[in-house]
Amino acid sequence: MNLLGLARHGLNPFEQFALLGVLVVALISLLYAWLLRGSVLKHDKGDQKMQDVWNAIRIGAESYLGRQLRTILPAIGLLTIAMFLSVFVVQPSNEAAVEFPQNTSMIIAVGRTIAFIMGASFSLIVGQLGMRMAIQANVRAASAARRGFNEALSIAYYAGTITGMLTDGLGLLGGTIIFMVFGKASPDVLLGFGFGGTLLALFMRVGGGIYTKAADVGADLVGKVEKDIPEDDPRNAAVIADLVGDNVGDCAGMAADIFESYEVTIVSALILGLALSAVEPNPALKLRWIVYPLIIRGIGVISSILGTFTVPIWEKFPIKWLRAHDAEESMFRSYEVSSVNTVVFSFVVAILYAHDWRLAALTSIGVGLAVAFNPLTSYFTSTKKQPVKDIVKATDTGPATTILTGLSVGMESSVWALIVIAISFVFALLLYEGDGSNYVLYAVAMIGIGMLSHTGNNVAMDSYGPISDNSNGIGEMSWHGMEDEATLKARQIMADLDAVGNTTKAITKGVAIASAVIAAVSLFASYFADITRVQIQLNVPAALQLTSINISSTKVFIGFLLGGALPWLFSSLSIKAVSRAAAEIVIEVRRQFRIPGIMEGTKTPDYGEVVGISTKSAQKELVPLATIAVVTPLMVGLVLKVEALGGFLAGVILCGQLLAVFMANAGGAWDNAKKSVEDEPRNLAANTGKGSERHKAAVVGDTVGDPLKDTAGPALNPMIKLVNLVSLIAAPIMVSHENLGVVGWIVVFAMLAAWIWAFAQSQKHVDLTKEIDVPAVAGNK
Amino acid sequence: MNLLGLARHGLNPFEQFALLGVLVVALISLLYAWLLRGSVLKHDKGDQKMQDVWNAIRIGAESYLGRQLRTILPAIGLLTIAMFLSVFVVQPSNEAAVEFPQNTSMIIAVGRTIAFIMGASFSLIVGQLGMRMAIQANVRAASAARRGFNEALSIAYYAGTITGMLTDGLGLLGGTIIFMVFGKASPDVLLGFGFGGTLLALFMRVGGGIYTKAADVGADLVGKVEKDIPEDDPRNAAVIADLVGDNVGDCAGMAADIFESYEVTIVSALILGLALSAVEPNPALKLRWIVYPLIIRGIGVISSILGTFTVPIWEKFPIKWLRAHDAEESMFRSYEVSSVNTVVFSFVVAILYAHDWRLAALTSIGVGLAVAFNPLTSYFTSTKKQPVKDIVKATDTGPATTILTGLSVGMESSVWALIVIAISFVFALLLYEGDGSNYVLYAVAMIGIGMLSHTGNNVAMDSYGPISDNSNGIGEMSWHGMEDEATLKARQIMADLDAVGNTTKAITKGVAIASAVIAAVSLFASYFADITRVQIQLNVPAALQLTSINISSTKVFIGFLLGGALPWLFSSLSIKAVSRAAAEIVIEVRRQFRIPGIMEGTKTPDYGEVVGISTKSAQKELVPLATIAVVTPLMVGLVLKVEALGGFLAGVILCGQLLAVFMANAGGAWDNAKKSVEDEPRNLAANTGKGSERHKAAVVGDTVGDPLKDTAGPALNPMIKLVNLVSLIAAPIMVSHENLGVVGWIVVFAMLAAWIWAFAQSQKHVDLTKEIDVPAVAGNK
Repeated sequence: MNLLGLARHGLNPFEQFALLGVLVVALISLLYAWLLRGSVLKHDKGDQKMQDVWNAIRIGAESYLGRQLRTILPAIGLLTIAMFLSVFVVQPSNEAAVEFPQNTSMIIAVGRTIAFIMGASFSLIVGQLGMRMAIQANVRAASAARRGFNEALSIAYYAGTITGMLTDGLGLLGGTIIFMVFGKASPDVLLGFGFGGTLLALFMRVGGGIYTKAADVGADLVGKVEKDIPEDDPRNAAVIADLVGDNVGDCAGMAADIFESYEVTIVSALILGLALSAVEPNPALKLRWIVYPLIIRGIGVISSILGTFTVPIWEKFPIKWLRAHDAEESMFRSYEVSSVNTVVFSFVVAILYAHDWRLAALTSIGVGLAVAFNPLTSYFTSTKKQPVKDIVKATDTGPATTILTGLSVGMESSVWALIVIAISFVFALLLYEGDGSNYVLYAVAMIGIGMLSHTGNNVAMDSYGPISDNSNGIGEMSWHGMEDEATLKARQIMADLDAVGNTTKAITKGVAIASAVIAAVSLFASYFADITRVQIQLNVPAALQLTSINISSTKVFIGFLLGGALPWLFSSLSIKAVSRAAAEIVIEVRRQFRIPGIMEGTKTPDYGEVVGISTKSAQKELVPLATIAVVTPLMVGLVLKVEALGGFLAGVILCGQLLAVFMANAGGAWDNAKKSVEDEPRNLAANTGKGSERHKAAVVGDTVGDPLKDTAGPALNPMIKLVNLVSLIAAPIMVSHENLGVVGWIVVFAMLAAWIWAFAQSQKHVDLTKEIDVPAVAGNK
Repeated sequence: MNLLGLARHGLNPFEQFALLGVLVVALISLLYAWLLRGSVLKHDKGDQKMQDVWNAIRIGAESYLGRQLRTILPAIGLLTIAMFLSVFVVQPSNEAAVEFPQNTSMIIAVGRTIAFIMGASFSLIVGQLGMRMAIQANVRAASAARRGFNEALSIAYYAGTITGMLTDGLGLLGGTIIFMVFGKASPDVLLGFGFGGTLLALFMRVGGGIYTKAADVGADLVGKVEKDIPEDDPRNAAVIADLVGDNVGDCAGMAADIFESYEVTIVSALILGLALSAVEPNPALKLRWIVYPLIIRGIGVISSILGTFTVPIWEKFPIKWLRAHDAEESMFRSYEVSSVNTVVFSFVVAILYAHDWRLAALTSIGVGLAVAFNPLTSYFTSTKKQPVKDIVKATDTGPATTILTGLSVGMESSVWALIVIAISFVFALLLYEGDGSNYVLYAVAMIGIGMLSHTGNNVAMDSYGPISDNSNGIGEMSWHGMEDEATLKARQIMADLDAVGNTTKAITKGVAIASAVIAAVSLFASYFADITRVQIQLNVPAALQLTSINISSTKVFIGFLLGGALPWLFSSLSIKAVSRAAAEIVIEVRRQFRIPGIMEGTKTPDYGEVVGISTKSAQKELVPLATIAVVTPLMVGLVLKVEALGGFLAGVILCGQLLAVFMANAGGAWDNAKKSVEDEPRNLAANTGKGSERHKAAVVGDTVGDPLKDTAGPALNPMIKLVNLVSLIAAPIMVSHENLGVVGWIVVFAMLAAWIWAFAQSQKHVDLTKEIDVPAVAGNK
């Protein structure tokens, strides 16, 4: 049997069917997304006022994405060429030469280039379409809130599911097609696919993160702090930018980020699988190491569809003890359905097809890991648990103790998150230690495959957050001053939806970070495996081949120190970037407030101007950060060589993980501590509720936490993956050019110059005392 | 020639003379300390009121040290026995058997036990005597301030120098005597010496750190925040505890910490030196690897004496361009004298004796490293530089932006500190890479030897800080309400002295952290070298011997992740410990304020009660933290084995360094930003100076920074050294007990239980709403 010529890769009939099945599943998930789109769009968009607000958000968000695309297009163009040429600097793998005996380099070069463009486009599509759907849904959910809770919830949740299914479908489609075409040569090509996705994710995550917090902080600093007007007040010129920010940051950025993890875990699983496949003694089982992860991904997508499909049934489920009490519980119940389904079928496939139950145990551990992060994140950030209660108590003694308690909570949460990840690795070790270290590395990659198998559900739950947040904002703005009962009831529904969204957003954030780390560790493992492969191919003498990344070697230790420093630098710079961008917004909002009529509410502020400033400065801040992320590992690898670069990667992963979780959870805990205080009865004498001194302290905590949890922390996810992927791609070049030569050193110094330029950009200042006195007439349209 | 029988170690005549010379130098530095003591004590202690305040501080500090001693004595006793028995679990090194062919184990066991007690006692003496001298000096400096700046300065500086000379003298004495007695067997014994010092340093540093900040934060929260009375106001019951805290934290804790680095760098230099000595082909140069570092230390002590001796001459120096303009510059000039002296003589010794100029280059790099941290720390924390100016600017927009800017500054500073350390390692690599990796590790240890050679000057500059701080406090309290010109002038002098102290303290803090890291890296290198040695001795087959700590092995990676998490846990817990201890003080101070007459100033508060509470809670918090630091590496090593423990150590060092510098510099920058705002002209309308909104924001920053820079950050220094040293001591046991067996697992579970107990302790809460209504009469003595 030879379906679509798949037999030439050595696939047996079952494997050929299975791969086609996976492909079909990928297409089904895209179809499911399309069907969901229809069901969301059929709802109404509410009255004219709502649509006005909504249009402003929509135009702002689209103009952001458009501008972002223009900013990064030159970089993408340049890197497309680099991808193409990279194949000619170091010859493709021996496997590629076997698959394509003629024109090997050219075929791989074209393949890698197309894959790169495909990876980048898919990431872009997930971000762009996902965000557009979110925007389509938010006004509809707001309108539906007037009719009832469930309708509003299902609009928001299913719009989120669209993004989830796009992530699943495109990720699976890309990986499967590449394997079908390139067979054993696919790692050469998959690197391009992974890199395209990673690069776009970095751009969207970092740019979106800076945008969203610059707008948020800028709006708050002038609105809440200086003018003492409430959040989402339509008189504040930055309020639309703030709402746009939720979409470009939490929605587009997050989706691209998770898509990337989804992609690179499959890339590293295939790379590590090929290494095992080469030494597999049983010819009939040779390809199981590669086909198994693809099948599991297919099963995961089916599970996700099944799970998200069941959301509405849980509140009326016939069996009582399984019945859900509220919307949140329904989402979790549906997640459990997906999990059970994946675990069961992965054991079926592992035992019947791969003849190794341990593979299913690993993917199940991965599934469990994603689930384990729920209670963990929730313990440290939920208002019902001790850590947030401690922060609330600390507000008694002012902002300083509030901050200190939050820092301590964040630090501790980071430790436990890391311990959970370490435990999952212990399982990989226990199951495969006897088989050798390459098997353990593959086992770690399988945990990653399992962990991301329910990306559909995760992205759905995450995208639900900004959608409900935005509906709430649209309500606040378009129903400003309306106090009739129907409106009040609709508002309460939206506030409830928003609260659910905050929880699901926090949880998926935890999963996103953990998945980034698992993905990065898989890439790190592939890095080591790949260097060995390249060295053999380049006929490096056995004595000089890399057998370990020896951290007790001083050179590796130096790389390791530098690697650990990178996430700290990245965090420091991204916090600064937010401050700078926020400062520009502050200046503009202040200017508009001086225009007569704005503060009185008789004139509409120029929202577009602030959106434009936000967009522009986010782009400006993005480029230096991306430059540092790409150039640093290359410099370390070229100067200190591949083994030290391995140390560097380990340092990046460790410090990246610890810092990212610390920032995300400290921020989440402060956020919820503030909400706790706001939910107290307002009594200034007893120092409780909104407006009290305790509330002010809590607001300080929340404001500190915002850029940590929504910019600096999330920016680390794509960064650690990008650094690992860049190293993986560049490793063959570094191995084959041990002696740099003049050209090599020129390249290093050019990179150093780029690094210094990027760093210098990040040290610039915005003069907040600069007050442009633009004539009031010109300033207002 | 055979001086004192030294020839039996294979020492040539020059080496015998040199060692004796080093011993004499150690004694000279103790003599110098004794002479300085006389010159400080001959000054007067001021009027009765000053002596009253001073007596309260003195009694409080002594009661703290007494209680601390009682708390840790059982632990010391237990560990003394463990040290003795440890030799019988694994037989001593082959070198020991050669040196002492009969009763080897017993001799080494007794030697190690005595060395342990010696290390602990020396550390205790440095802390205790140093602090007592500081207290003797503070009141005298305060009194001298009425007579003039220079006299007050020299009292404070020379009292600090006493501690510096004790550190030098005792550290050198211990190391040299042990080598003289045990020769090649000395590493077996030196480990005990190092461990004793390290353990005490941890106790004093962590206990002192918690004490000082609990008192400080507690005093501020009630005094400044609730009652709005100034700092050091005698009506505040916590004010004496606050002053005591400066002594037990900044003085005793810091001195013990630096003493420890001084000690363990020599321990690791000797361990690594012995490894090189064993393979040295030239029999005449065999011992240079061991004797050279001891000679350099001797030279360093002479340089320190010379340098501190010259402090008074620089303001009147005949050559104009060398003349110092103020006290601060004089201290730095004297530091430069020491540096030049050490560098010149180290080249003389390296070339003429060791026949390897590179050794001198390395010690000079070490000297340079200590110097390099001055401008680095100063850039990020000085009021004159951009980072602090940025924080000051951020106070415009409230506490949240103040905190964010400070976090960003701290993160960035940490990156640069790490890069400087990495660069010093690059030099080690460049100089010795050709000779092999063991030489590079030794080279790193030599940088540590160089870096700590001017410990005398560093400790002097550091101890000067709390002395001047306390004199200022004594002045504030005993001259309360006096407004005559002489008093105002004396106050100004003391404020100036205090400001100089803040700078020198910040700088030496940077040096202390860096030295801890260098010391830890040396220990890490020794760890690796020692395992190889033990494996050979235990006849582990060559194939199973450790040739690398392979970070790409999953097991090592797990250890590595856990290691990285430890400093985060430690920081989280120590911040919590401060909050908890501060909360107890808050309750007591509030209680006292309710006693009629206290707030009016007609009744003296019961200072002793607060001192007692502070003392008690610092001790209570100390034990769990120390338990976690000791037990975690042992568990990792026993369960995951020595290679993974190597990964663990690397993780601890990396994250420990980054976090420690981050916290120290963020804290220092906030502190100085607050000072900047306070130095502005007070104008509430323009929002400048004390009492303005900007000032309030700056105070929040400072309060957040306090426990970071004075408790959590400094606590990491002894922790990273202790973890490395514990691993080094336990390594032979882990190697020889690869298979744990039932007893082994029982030990592991007992440790786990201890760990869980310690962690549970740190989760306890103090109920701040608990208001004990003690009768006013009973509560006031």
